[in-house]
Amino acid sequence: MTMAKEETKFNIIQKGAELVQTRGFNNTGINEILEAASVAKGSFYFYFKSKDDFGLQLIDFYFDWNRAKLEKHLNNSTLAPLQRLKNFFSDYKRYFAKSRCSGGCPFGNLSQEMSDINESFRNKLLEIFSQFKAPIKQCLWEAQTIGEISRSHDVDVLSDFILNSWEGSLIAMKLYKSIEPLTIFERMIFDVLLKA
Amino acid sequence: MTMAKEETKFNIIQKGAELVQTRGFNNTGINEILEAASVAKGSFYFYFKSKDDFGLQLIDFYFDWNRAKLEKHLNNSTLAPLQRLKNFFSDYKRYFAKSRCSGGCPFGNLSQEMSDINESFRNKLLEIFSQFKAPIKQCLWEAQTIGEISRSHDVDVLSDFILNSWEGSLIAMKLYKSIEPLTIFERMIFDVLLKA
Repeated sequence: MTMAKEETKFNIIQKGAELVQTRGFNNTGINEILEAASVAKGSFYFYFKSKDDFGLQLIDFYFDWNRAKLEKHLNNSTLAPLQRLKNFFSDYKRYFAKSRCSGGCPFGNLSQEMSDINESFRNKLLEIFSQFKAPIKQCLWEAQTIGEISRSHDVDVLSDFILNSWEGSLIAMKLYKSIEPLTIFERMIFDVLLKA
Repeated sequence: MTMAKEETKFNIIQKGAELVQTRGFNNTGINEILEAASVAKGSFYFYFKSKDDFGLQLIDFYFDWNRAKLEKHLNNSTLAPLQRLKNFFSDYKRYFAKSRCSGGCPFGNLSQEMSDINESFRNKLLEIFSQFKAPIKQCLWEAQTIGEISRSHDVDVLSDFILNSWEGSLIAMKLYKSIEPLTIFERMIFDVLLKA
């Protein structure tokens, strides 16, 4: 693709990302996306093989944004492991406070919407969640090694539970239109569970 | 409405409930619902004021099914409060194991799908979650009173966190097509958090 075509494609994904995040994947039409991106109707299949192909590339687009946060916080070896984890979640909390508690996690949203009806999406999302889980588990393992958390914890189970609780807290945030569920998450995970 | 009409309406809601649970509310067409219920196309507005009116009645329909579980387990004063809570969640776990880890919680699903785009749904779902939270909080309060859990817990915060973690665990269940996330939820809540 030429540079201009690459830019057009990126613009379609970017505008599509906003629409899908608000309305869901199945409820967002190709024409609406093209309209939002100011691209001629009918040119969708020039850029994407199918709507599913678009959706799977959309997941990569969402993940690029999240990867930056993962690396910034969880790989920051100048801080103690638990502090890295705290900073990771509080960064998202600030982001959602600014975006008025809307949207939530695109991967949680798509998992909910697509897991029962589309195996390509489900497999892609499984891969994404493993990329969140690995550095969280690594932080917990390091926290355990230096004695920040008890050796009695199973860090594999713990990292799953933390991610799942976070996803559920984001749904509550959307529902209550309040970041309070995220504050409760932080309090229960860092002040109670990880101190047990 | 006559008895036959009441039955037809109930049948529409019941068939619609299955479709919405799999595909989402916005992605389910009125004609698909009528077709599934074997009701003449075009007769939807005889039974419902609008698609939203149908959706709000659907939430009541889903809740009736859940209310039975709430009452059976959480109000069962022959058991200790923590055992009631455990039974409540393990009942759902058995249900989801049978339904091959699909669907998940209709209220969590609709909260995710509708909270940013429809205030009537959001308000209705807030009301539903308060009806789950109240008996859970009551059980935790009783558990605290008889010394099953520490007095240091804030049972209000705890009941929110338990519900939110449960909702997130159900998303993971759908994604992984496994009840393992629900087992992890039980282990983290009952064996770690509530023992802290």
